[in-house]
Amino acid sequence: MTLSKQEMPKKSSFFETEQALNYEIEEQVMQLFASSSHVTSIESQIDEITNKFSQDFLSTLDANTHIDLDYLLSNFSDSQIPVQPASLESYLKYLDNNIVAHSIHTSSPRFIGHMTSALPCFVRPLAKLMTAMNQNAVKIETAKALSFCEREALAMLHRLIYNLDDNFYAQHIQNNLSTLGILVSGGTVANITALWCARNTALGPKDDFLGIEKEGLTAALDFYGYKGAAIIGSELMHFSFDKAADLMGIGTHRLIRVPADCNNRVDIQALRQAVAQCRAQNLLIIAIVGVAGTTDSGGVDSLAEIAEIAQSANVHFHVDAAWGGPLIFSQQHRHKLAGIEQADSVTIDGHKQLYLPMGIGLVFFRDPYMAKAIEKQASYTMRKGSFDLGKRALEGSRPGMALFLHAGLNLIGLKGYEFLIDEGIRKTQYMADRICTMPEFELLAEPDTNLLLYRYIPEHLRELVVKKQLTEIDNQLINECNERLQKIQRQIGRTFISRTTKTTTSFGKEIPIIVLRAVIANPLTTEDDINAVLNEQIQLASEISIETFL
Amino acid sequence: MTLSKQEMPKKSSFFETEQALNYEIEEQVMQLFASSSHVTSIESQIDEITNKFSQDFLSTLDANTHIDLDYLLSNFSDSQIPVQPASLESYLKYLDNNIVAHSIHTSSPRFIGHMTSALPCFVRPLAKLMTAMNQNAVKIETAKALSFCEREALAMLHRLIYNLDDNFYAQHIQNNLSTLGILVSGGTVANITALWCARNTALGPKDDFLGIEKEGLTAALDFYGYKGAAIIGSELMHFSFDKAADLMGIGTHRLIRVPADCNNRVDIQALRQAVAQCRAQNLLIIAIVGVAGTTDSGGVDSLAEIAEIAQSANVHFHVDAAWGGPLIFSQQHRHKLAGIEQADSVTIDGHKQLYLPMGIGLVFFRDPYMAKAIEKQASYTMRKGSFDLGKRALEGSRPGMALFLHAGLNLIGLKGYEFLIDEGIRKTQYMADRICTMPEFELLAEPDTNLLLYRYIPEHLRELVVKKQLTEIDNQLINECNERLQKIQRQIGRTFISRTTKTTTSFGKEIPIIVLRAVIANPLTTEDDINAVLNEQIQLASEISIETFL
Repeated sequence: MTLSKQEMPKKSSFFETEQALNYEIEEQVMQLFASSSHVTSIESQIDEITNKFSQDFLSTLDANTHIDLDYLLSNFSDSQIPVQPASLESYLKYLDNNIVAHSIHTSSPRFIGHMTSALPCFVRPLAKLMTAMNQNAVKIETAKALSFCEREALAMLHRLIYNLDDNFYAQHIQNNLSTLGILVSGGTVANITALWCARNTALGPKDDFLGIEKEGLTAALDFYGYKGAAIIGSELMHFSFDKAADLMGIGTHRLIRVPADCNNRVDIQALRQAVAQCRAQNLLIIAIVGVAGTTDSGGVDSLAEIAEIAQSANVHFHVDAAWGGPLIFSQQHRHKLAGIEQADSVTIDGHKQLYLPMGIGLVFFRDPYMAKAIEKQASYTMRKGSFDLGKRALEGSRPGMALFLHAGLNLIGLKGYEFLIDEGIRKTQYMADRICTMPEFELLAEPDTNLLLYRYIPEHLRELVVKKQLTEIDNQLINECNERLQKIQRQIGRTFISRTTKTTTSFGKEIPIIVLRAVIANPLTTEDDINAVLNEQIQLASEISIETFL
Repeated sequence: MTLSKQEMPKKSSFFETEQALNYEIEEQVMQLFASSSHVTSIESQIDEITNKFSQDFLSTLDANTHIDLDYLLSNFSDSQIPVQPASLESYLKYLDNNIVAHSIHTSSPRFIGHMTSALPCFVRPLAKLMTAMNQNAVKIETAKALSFCEREALAMLHRLIYNLDDNFYAQHIQNNLSTLGILVSGGTVANITALWCARNTALGPKDDFLGIEKEGLTAALDFYGYKGAAIIGSELMHFSFDKAADLMGIGTHRLIRVPADCNNRVDIQALRQAVAQCRAQNLLIIAIVGVAGTTDSGGVDSLAEIAEIAQSANVHFHVDAAWGGPLIFSQQHRHKLAGIEQADSVTIDGHKQLYLPMGIGLVFFRDPYMAKAIEKQASYTMRKGSFDLGKRALEGSRPGMALFLHAGLNLIGLKGYEFLIDEGIRKTQYMADRICTMPEFELLAEPDTNLLLYRYIPEHLRELVVKKQLTEIDNQLINECNERLQKIQRQIGRTFISRTTKTTTSFGKEIPIIVLRAVIANPLTTEDDINAVLNEQIQLASEISIETFL
C-alpha cells in the first residue's frame, strides 16, 4: 500500500509529535532520578512543601477531621493510572488536601485510643536517610554495615530480656550461626515466626524422618505419633495467633483459648487443665503463649507460673510482649514481667512502646540456634556461612528499619525509656483515679499497664451500678450507649477513645459488654488532655441520653 | 537504724543528684517529643545534618567502601543499651562514620548486581511525611484517608493486570467486601498470602466440615480424600515458595520444582507431567506457579500455556511477577506476560521495578472475594463490615506505604513506567551485545528482561568455549575464577555484579556453573557505566589469572 501525499505529512507529524512526547516523558522521568544539583533542588522544593504538611499535621490538637467515610470513598474511586506523569506541584496539593488532611492525628495528645503515639523527632529525618540509603536487609551485599548494626541492636534488647553474661554475647552477637533475634515487619510476623520455629523444632528430623519442614505436617504428626497439634494461651491472645494456627495448618480450633480472670490474666489453673487435656488427647503442644500486655486491656499474664507449666510439660514457651515488653526498662514495673527471661521466644514491637515508626516487629530467642529450624537458602543470594539476614526469616527483601531501632536505643537510652514507661503508667493511674471519682463512668478493671477499660453509665442506671443490680437489659442499654458514644466521639474528631467487647467480667453471668478503651502512651498527653477527653464524653453522652435513653 | 551525721548529707546529696539526673532525663526525652518550635528547630538541625549524609551518599559513584567485614563485626559488638540518652550530635557523627559510610550504594549506576536501584527523588521527602503521619494501615481508626487511597492504588494496578471493565471497578474499588489486592511488606509475604488463599479455598468449608482454617490441614486432606498437598512451579521459583510450603505444613518436598529450559523458562511438557503425577498420587495441587522474572535470571515463563494447564486441571494459578510484573507498562514488552490476566493471583513488588522504597509487596486477586478465605476478626479492632484493611491480611499493624505507591503511579504514570522498563531492557541488550563481542566473556542466555547471566573465561580456555569443548575440570576452574572475581570486585567496591549458580545450562551434562549476574534497572546506569563494569572485571580477572590460573 502506498500512501497518498495528503496522508504522508499527517503520519509523519503524528510520529514527530509522539517522539516529542516521548522525549518529554524521558526528560520528566529522568529529572526525578538524576543525582545532579538540579534534582537536589527539585527534592529540596518537595522537602520544603512536605515539611510544611508535616508541621501542620503534627501541631493539630484534634484527633481527626470529621469528614464522612462516604465522601472519602467517592474521592478515591479512580481505577486508571494516569497516562502522563502528574506535575509535582499539583500532586502535592492533591496529597495535602485529600490524604494528609483526612489522616488520623495519631500523635495528638487527645488521640488516646490506639497503640500509636507521637514519635521522637529524630525518626522523621532518619526515615528520609533510610530511604536515601535504600538498603535491603535481606543480604549483606545490599546491607553491609546495617546487617551488623541490626544484630547489635537485637543483641541489646536480647540482653535486656535474658540478661545472659558477657561471654554469651561476645560469642553470639556477630556470629553468623547465631540468631538472637529477627527484625520483622510487625508483631504478627514476629508471633508467626516464633511459632514456626517452635513447630519445626518439635517436629524436626529424627532417624529416617527428614522433619516437618521437608515432609509436611501430616507426615510429621504421624511419625511422632500425635493425633494433632495445638497452641495454648489466654483467650485474650492477639488475633495473630489465629492467623498462625490457620497458616501453619494447625487449625484455629486447636488454638486453645483459656479463660482469663477479671484482671485480664490467664487463669493458671485452667491453663494447667488445658495442657493435661491436650496430653490426654495425644495432641502435640507446639507452644504455650503468655501475653504481656493484651491488646484489648493491657493485662499481663503471670509469666513465671506459665514458664513453670511449660517447663514441666517440656513445651516451647512464647511470650507475646508486643505491647508490654518495654516494661522491662522500668525498675518500678519490670517485676510484672518476671518469668519472661524463661521464655524460649519473645515478641516485642518497636512501633509500639519503643516509640519507633510503624513496621518494626522483633522476635527474640533464648537459644541462639533455634531459628536454624526455619533456615532456607538460595544460590543467587542466601548463602550458607554468609551474614545474609534473610536466611532465617519469614520475610525476604526488607528495609533498613534497624536504623530506627539502633537510634532509639542510643538516643533515648535505658533511662529515657524507663521515664516513658513510668509516665504512661502514672498517667493511666491518674485517669483510673479520675474515673473512680466520676459517677458518669464505671472502671472495669484496675490497669496492669497503660490501657484502661471503662464505660459510660446513663444517669438513671448509676445507682444500680453501685448496688451491682444491673439486669441484662440494663447492660444492653449501656452497651448501645457506649457504642454510640464512641462512634460519635470518633466522628466529631476532637478526641478519640477506642472500644472493645469484653465477656470476661465480674457480672456473675457471661454477657458481652461494650467498653471504652484508653491507651495512654503518648508523652505529649497531659492530665488536662485526659480530663478533656472524659469531659467530652460526658457532654456527648448527655446529648445521646436526651435523644435515646429517657 | 539511725544514720550518723556524716552519712546524712551524703545520702541526701545522692538523692538530690539522682533527682536532678531524672529531671535531666525527663527534659532530654521530652524535648525529643514536644511539638513546640524548640523541637521543630532540633528536628531541622537533624534534618540538615542527615540531608548532608544523604547527598554525599547518593552522589558517590562507587558501589561500596572496601572495608572488611571483620572490622565491621568488631565495630558492632556492644550488647549493652546506653544508660543515658546519647547526645544527638555525637550519635549522628557515629551514624555517619560507622553506618552510612559502610552501607551499599544501591543507587550507584555501577552497582548493577541486585534488584535495588536509584529511586525517584520524591520518595525521600515522602518517607519523612509518612513517618510524621505515622498511620497504621491495619484499621480505619488509625488510617482514615490512607485506607481508601491504598485501595485506589491497588485497583489501578489490578486494572493494568486484569483489564476488567468500568462496572467491575466501580463495584469493587471501595467495597469493604471486596479485596482487589493486599499491600504487604514484600514479595515473600505476597506469595505466601496468595498460596494461603489458594489452600484455604481448595480446602474450604463443606457440609459438616468447617474448613482447613478451623480444622487444620490433616483433617482437611482427610475430609476431601487427598493423600497430601503440593505446589507446582519452575525449579527457578523464588525461595519464598520453600518458606510457604514449610510454613503452611505442606512440606518442601511437595513443592514440586519442574525443570526449566536453557532460557530459564519452565518446561511446559514437564509441568504437564508433574500435574498428572500429582493426580496419580492423589495429591491436591494447591497452586501452579508461573514465574514472571526469575530472581536469578529474569526469565519469564510461558504464562498463557501454564494458565491453560491450570484451568484444565481446575487449579489455582499464581503468577510470581515480583520482578517482571511492571513489564505490563511497556507496549513493546508486555506480550511476554501474555496469560497473566488469567492468573487467580499475582505478586508484584513495589520496591523493585515500580522504583519505590523497600517494604512494598503487592498481591492481586482476580476474584475480589478470594481473600475472604483468610479473613480474621478481633473485637478490639477488626470489625466485620468495617474498612479495616487488616481483616484480610497476613500482617497486622503496618505503615502507610500506600503513600509511595499512590505517588509513584501518579508522578511517574503509565508512560513514565513504560520508559523505565524499556530503557532497562534496551541497556541489558546493549550489555549482552557487548559481551558477545568480547572474547573474555561468555553470555549464558539471551536475556528475557533486564537480568543478564554471563561469565568470565580465562584466556587459555577461550578457544575451547568457542568450540564447545570444555571439560568438567575446565568448568571447575572457570567457576573458581568467577567466584574469586565476583568477591574481589565486591571487596574493592568500585563496581558490583552479583553471582549465582546455574545447573540448567546447555552443556549436555548437568554440572553446576558459577555465573555473573547483572541487573540493569537503574535509570542512572549509562552505557559507559556498563563498559566500566566489564572493563574492571577484565582487569581484575587478568590479575587473578596471573596469580592462580597459569
